Amino acid sequence: MPSSIRLVQFGLGPIGLGTARLVLSKAPALQLVGAIDVDPEKTGRDLAELFDLSESTGVVVSPDSDSVLREVRPDVVLHTTSSFLPNVAEQLERCLAAGANVVSSTEELAYPFARHPELTERLDHAAKAAGRVLLGTGVNPGFAMDTLALAATAPCAEVRAVHVERFVDAGKRRLPLQRKVGAGLSAAEFEAKAATGTFGHIGLVESLRILAAGLGWEVEAIKDRMEPVLAEDEVTTPFLTVQAGEVAGIHHRAEGIVGGKAVLTLDLKMYVGVEDARDAVLVDGDPPIDLVVRGGIFGDTATCALLVNMAPLVLEAKPGLRTMAEMPVPRAFGTAQSS
Amino acid sequence: MPSSIRLVQFGLGPIGLGTARLVLSKAPALQLVGAIDVDPEKTGRDLAELFDLSESTGVVVSPDSDSVLREVRPDVVLHTTSSFLPNVAEQLERCLAAGANVVSSTEELAYPFARHPELTERLDHAAKAAGRVLLGTGVNPGFAMDTLALAATAPCAEVRAVHVERFVDAGKRRLPLQRKVGAGLSAAEFEAKAATGTFGHIGLVESLRILAAGLGWEVEAIKDRMEPVLAEDEVTTPFLTVQAGEVAGIHHRAEGIVGGKAVLTLDLKMYVGVEDARDAVLVDGDPPIDLVVRGGIFGDTATCALLVNMAPLVLEAKPGLRTMAEMPVPRAFGTAQSS
Repeated sequence: MPSSIRLVQFGLGPIGLGTARLVLSKAPALQLVGAIDVDPEKTGRDLAELFDLSESTGVVVSPDSDSVLREVRPDVVLHTTSSFLPNVAEQLERCLAAGANVVSSTEELAYPFARHPELTERLDHAAKAAGRVLLGTGVNPGFAMDTLALAATAPCAEVRAVHVERFVDAGKRRLPLQRKVGAGLSAAEFEAKAATGTFGHIGLVESLRILAAGLGWEVEAIKDRMEPVLAEDEVTTPFLTVQAGEVAGIHHRAEGIVGGKAVLTLDLKMYVGVEDARDAVLVDGDPPIDLVVRGGIFGDTATCALLVNMAPLVLEAKPGLRTMAEMPVPRAFGTAQSS
Repeated sequence: MPSSIRLVQFGLGPIGLGTARLVLSKAPALQLVGAIDVDPEKTGRDLAELFDLSESTGVVVSPDSDSVLREVRPDVVLHTTSSFLPNVAEQLERCLAAGANVVSSTEELAYPFARHPELTERLDHAAKAAGRVLLGTGVNPGFAMDTLALAATAPCAEVRAVHVERFVDAGKRRLPLQRKVGAGLSAAEFEAKAATGTFGHIGLVESLRILAAGLGWEVEAIKDRMEPVLAEDEVTTPFLTVQAGEVAGIHHRAEGIVGGKAVLTLDLKMYVGVEDARDAVLVDGDPPIDLVVRGGIFGDTATCALLVNMAPLVLEAKPGLRTMAEMPVPRAFGTAQSS
């Protein structure tokens, strides 16, 4: 591993801004050498302005990814522009062609083989040709409902089923996430949005597939259902108020079927007012495993952290499109006590 | 990965017998092709006899490791003969020289760099020369207090400290483990045994070092203290009875110090009558992580499982002496729903 890893931040939405800021906080182990975004509110500005810092970061936001990548030749690009692979495939190819490894928050990239086989092959080929690694990760998909669940099976001689829960109080998260889960919509508005297929949590089926592939289980069918959760009483967050009867958020459930049975279940509840917030993995196995992260893993910070924490690990991984199940055990990087 | 992995079991104590039996249960994905032990009660006998199976396994226990290894050329040796690296270094070298990868339960091998630097170098060299992987693992060290704790930090932007607990009711474990923790000894007998340095749980400091190395933390000192836990009341297990005032087991604690503070603490309680059995990882970080495996991870099964589950992963790893922190996310192999 180089003594300092040079990174470019590609995409400066809420997650990208968080990631860029985290990279800056981890200097000199990490060095932010470029930032890309097309938003005219951001281009041409020093990141210091966006973060309200008193000193220049030396990094000016550019809309021209090709120039930035060619100029600074980063070791790793942290990519955070869209949830959907077809929207970002060209961006990813550009990064790889410039000789960069890529860690991306694109949810569909976490396990793209089933949903986008041709794109996946193209990207895997591009990564291998460049001798670089392309990885999709984040807290979910990428960790809470897949990597952590997979690791929970490591001490098991036998596994018959794995049940994963993630219950998130959306009221404690940023506004875009509250909007993403539909907080404050009427049931009818929710239905209309849900029908677009780009609404709610993206990546639950990807998590299920990471888990299945990691266990070597061939699921014969996947059932995937998202429903609105309606507020029973009025709920107020720092950003909005949900009236009783309005949508508080989502309940999204995916089931992986083998032999007619739901042997993998992923249960995601994200709504304002969730009371039993937690991440849990229940392995029906020998021995059984009953793992709980009490209070849950706070998602906004965690997604930024996972993107940054995987950067040193992709540098050592085998070139190609990789999933979290192929990567070394993930861990925090560049923290307080680091030498 | 080959369609069937050929394994030899080296060492047929309680863990080795469990491991061999688990390998047999995972045919045809795993194929047991040899078994080595010097115990005259076992040599020359078909494993079927030791397991009370009605059909021959085709595997006869041999005391001659060289012949077995040369003859069957296994992909992986599962090695379970001793906790201490100097006792097993030659056995491990013999396996590597025969072209086998090795997954070993030798506790000191889980992170041997600090305690046995010269032996480590010799073994790493031997593994690289053979193009094979040598890995020390098990439930503890190897998973509960190190790999799992490391993974728990993955969603953290900042980590200030990690506190790990493993509380085990030794009364629910096999007799050798109850003896290992001193159940039924007087306090004086315990002291005498503890002074030998080969008594109690081996590997707590190794777990701490895996965690520190994984986080990139350089600990300036490690404090390591094992104390007897005395029974307050009489406790009876299926194997023995501990009178009030006798030793019920151990409390073993290791602390990793950075900047004068215990930023890594590993707290292991193993005694008959533990009531709050659990594995827990508390990350003082951003976000904080409060992970608990309720009831704990049942150790006897789990150590066998981890040895077997890592076998397919060492086949894909970079040659050399590896630690769990360098391996892919561990997961169960060859389970019920596998294709």
